[in-house]
Amino acid sequence: MRILTDQILKEVITKRSSVSYKGSFGRVLIIGGNTNYGGAVIMNTMAAVHSGAGLVSVATDPSNFTAIHCHTPEAMVTDYQQDLKALIVNSDVVLIGSGLGDQLPLLQKVLASIQPHQILIIDGSALTLLAQHPQVLPVCHLVLTPHQMEWQRLSHIAIANQNQTDLNWQALQDYTNQPLLVLKSNHTQIYTKNEVYQIPVGGPYQATGGMGDTLAGMIAGFSAQFHPVASAVMAATYAHSAIAQELAQDYYVTLPTQISGQISPFMRRYSQLN
Amino acid sequence: MRILTDQILKEVITKRSSVSYKGSFGRVLIIGGNTNYGGAVIMNTMAAVHSGAGLVSVATDPSNFTAIHCHTPEAMVTDYQQDLKALIVNSDVVLIGSGLGDQLPLLQKVLASIQPHQILIIDGSALTLLAQHPQVLPVCHLVLTPHQMEWQRLSHIAIANQNQTDLNWQALQDYTNQPLLVLKSNHTQIYTKNEVYQIPVGGPYQATGGMGDTLAGMIAGFSAQFHPVASAVMAATYAHSAIAQELAQDYYVTLPTQISGQISPFMRRYSQLN
Amino acid sequence: MRILTDQILKEVITKRSSVSYKGSFGRVLIIGGNTNYGGAVIMNTMAAVHSGAGLVSVATDPSNFTAIHCHTPEAMVTDYQQDLKALIVNSDVVLIGSGLGDQLPLLQKVLASIQPHQILIIDGSALTLLAQHPQVLPVCHLVLTPHQMEWQRLSHIAIANQNQTDLNWQALQDYTNQPLLVLKSNHTQIYTKNEVYQIPVGGPYQATGGMGDTLAGMIAGFSAQFHPVASAVMAATYAHSAIAQELAQDYYVTLPTQISGQISPFMRRYSQLN
Amino acid sequence: MRILTDQILKEVITKRSSVSYKGSFGRVLIIGGNTNYGGAVIMNTMAAVHSGAGLVSVATDPSNFTAIHCHTPEAMVTDYQQDLKALIVNSDVVLIGSGLGDQLPLLQKVLASIQPHQILIIDGSALTLLAQHPQVLPVCHLVLTPHQMEWQRLSHIAIANQNQTDLNWQALQDYTNQPLLVLKSNHTQIYTKNEVYQIPVGGPYQATGGMGDTLAGMIAGFSAQFHPVASAVMAATYAHSAIAQELAQDYYVTLPTQISGQISPFMRRYSQLN
Repeated sequence: MRILTDQILKEVITKRSSVSYKGSFGRVLIIGGNTNYGGAVIMNTMAAVHSGAGLVSVATDPSNFTAIHCHTPEAMVTDYQQDLKALIVNSDVVLIGSGLGDQLPLLQKVLASIQPHQILIIDGSALTLLAQHPQVLPVCHLVLTPHQMEWQRLSHIAIANQNQTDLNWQALQDYTNQPLLVLKSNHTQIYTKNEVYQIPVGGPYQATGGMGDTLAGMIAGFSAQFHPVASAVMAATYAHSAIAQELAQDYYVTLPTQISGQISPFMRRYSQLN
Repeated sequence: MRILTDQILKEVITKRSSVSYKGSFGRVLIIGGNTNYGGAVIMNTMAAVHSGAGLVSVATDPSNFTAIHCHTPEAMVTDYQQDLKALIVNSDVVLIGSGLGDQLPLLQKVLASIQPHQILIIDGSALTLLAQHPQVLPVCHLVLTPHQMEWQRLSHIAIANQNQTDLNWQALQDYTNQPLLVLKSNHTQIYTKNEVYQIPVGGPYQATGGMGDTLAGMIAGFSAQFHPVASAVMAATYAHSAIAQELAQDYYVTLPTQISGQISPFMRRYSQLN
Repeated sequence: MRILTDQILKEVITKRSSVSYKGSFGRVLIIGGNTNYGGAVIMNTMAAVHSGAGLVSVATDPSNFTAIHCHTPEAMVTDYQQDLKALIVNSDVVLIGSGLGDQLPLLQKVLASIQPHQILIIDGSALTLLAQHPQVLPVCHLVLTPHQMEWQRLSHIAIANQNQTDLNWQALQDYTNQPLLVLKSNHTQIYTKNEVYQIPVGGPYQATGGMGDTLAGMIAGFSAQFHPVASAVMAATYAHSAIAQELAQDYYVTLPTQISGQISPFMRRYSQLN
Repeated sequence: MRILTDQILKEVITKRSSVSYKGSFGRVLIIGGNTNYGGAVIMNTMAAVHSGAGLVSVATDPSNFTAIHCHTPEAMVTDYQQDLKALIVNSDVVLIGSGLGDQLPLLQKVLASIQPHQILIIDGSALTLLAQHPQVLPVCHLVLTPHQMEWQRLSHIAIANQNQTDLNWQALQDYTNQPLLVLKSNHTQIYTKNEVYQIPVGGPYQATGGMGDTLAGMIAGFSAQFHPVASAVMAATYAHSAIAQELAQDYYVTLPTQISGQISPFMRRYSQLN
């Protein structure tokens, strides 16, 4: 296991080419947020937009539209009960699951539409649904972002044993295409195809609801802009905790919405260092 | 009667253990906010989230969902007319009553579901309902947060006599399990099982609508994280007025939403002092 | 005609007594805001709340509830089509008309409920309705806040002639009880029972939609706290333009919502000077 | 082709006359924003209001009303399916198309109501509709604000050839009345009746969704206040990118809503320089 350093930020967060337009920075589609958990997609969206994704669309319950627009008018909104095929096809990155709740048919339809070149991030309720109703996952750039209980449900590895990286590694081999795994805990680990990395920054000020939704949105935003996917995921996860650590100099708890507000200035600083 | 000092803050607001996750900091359920008084649960929620509660859910009228998500997407929302049993069972702290209005059946159902290990904070309209329709209160960690008129209704002690601590004390003995009492006034007093404390900070810049809703939310947030309950309640009440006093250096009136914005930096400062 | 100075602020904006509660600072009821002009009552409400009114209720179209709560959860909301009698009776100050639109029956019902001890501020659409459908105005502390076109409609004095204070004065004598008049223009004038005052501060950076709604809300907030009414109205009007003048050091246009954000710190400064 | 300098800002952004009222700074009507793209009119509106337009109305889908009022209560709202004739007649500037979607009949009705003295800005979906369903455009002060793909659809000039200013020029001659063209790209160009100008400021931090909606709103706000129209359009476009360039000192991506927050202080600075 290797310890990530902020070198990953310097490598990944490059200066933008002057010959670019919003399409150059990726199209992100966020799918989630039922009538109870709309906050989750709001936090996804804020994080993706502030990370610099070129275009962000949100497919969610219509009761969440207004609050999304209050936080980020930069995003487009769609009823997630409508046919999402055209939206999915036009996306570079699809993030599904934050606040989705118990909606297996919607998850199944999305899984069936993903194309091999696309990045698919599976988070939150969608991971629980996969544990309850195993699905054939699409061939694509797949990223799983479970917290420890979700990973236990998915992998059947008890939380107490999740510090054994070989066990987690083994479980990842069971997938036809080994996904990237962001295993969230107080020592978040990232499993790429070749290596396990640990995030050395962050702390218990992050232990608050919605933290993972913001991380998922940052992973979506970073992977829409930066390549390869594994590096983008590592940089996003590192940045998420590093921003929280900076905020913790002044705040007892670092709220998800505060973190989103610091993403763009944080990225600006690192973009000057490479 | 003893005068509280900021020693209570140094004792209660501890540094977070690095081995923790959001569940470590408590699950808060807020119940209140009808179609007219939705602001009350918004202010509850902001205060609880900014205090660092691990997870905050709000059971309220659905017309309040969007505004709650605009202020704090970190919170989850539920229609308070649906069955709340599962939510209550999963909570460490339940706060009921801010902006609840005239909904006795809902209050009764909640009282019937509370378990002995849980903390129940009764505020606002729920206190008036209890005065009008006396109920058997559940065995649990009970906290009452009346302002003077509400305490008069509940205890039949006239406001003019509420400065007699023995009268208030007597009234608290009438409960099967003596509750904690936060008696809000321009000299707010806290009655624990053993002692009466007075808050020496704060001032008339706090005399504005919603101040008590923010206090109730802070009490919920603090008691979700810190123990024993009495200490958490004292620290929250002290912090609430101390933050207002600091803001009053720059503001003629210290609005509830401003106070919520200062909770986390205020806690950060005190967490460094113990 | 006399030129107001900031002496009026020093006289009116007193330090709050430490023996006070939210009721000490007045109950304000704002009535207005149809489905098109909801922004007007939002700006009323922000101004009244940030001025320090003890309790603020808004009777408006229900489609405006969420946006009001997004800006000021400190306020309560009511459907203005419901019976407002109880609310009016419990108010110290009633402000009617900002964004009200063409609702004569509602205006008539409110006029019929006002009691002699109450302060009634008539603004915006309600002034146009009065011009179109003359009404017997209630005996109370009456304040009219027309801009020049509204005053022309009400008084039949052409805008070009409104610089003749004796004409305006004459028109005010026609009322059974001479109301206070705040005649808004680039040289706003205030007509009390005895004197005409001119506001020497402010400027064209204030020439933007909603400026008058913010002024009306400040007048409501100030007259709820400070006495006599004429002094409160003068102080509110002076403060409104003085805040704009300060903001204009940094902003090309001084938006109503920006002004509301500066009311409380502005009042704090002046409260230290008397 | 000439390179614009900030001289255009010094010429256009004049100090406001002290003899003025909100009508002096123009009435703007924004038409757009369907149920999916409500964010577009929010960004239009924020930009127009913060630019100092005297009065801003928004005709949009009613589902967008609350979010508009959350961001800018200064604006009025109307259902865009209602008859807009009276609103159009009372406007100095009409901006149509941002987030409008596929609503040809609405576009046609608006085109039929525009008067020769009015400024009409056509943006976003309305440009695509014009490409698909060519319309006789009204005699008025016409401004087109396409990005490169929209201009390709409208003019049939491939994006690769749009750097040939004579081709674009030719296409503009095909209109009965040559419109002003703001051709958005990483080197945005403005075609007036006599000359082509290029914007030398800005950069790839602007490549994010909604940037064009903010520009369209600024053009509406500037052309409502400043004359001649061509100068107002040039100043707005220059200011939009110059503000982004300033923000980019601190931010990796310059979000539309951030830009709107800086318009008024930016204008203040330039208004002192002429």
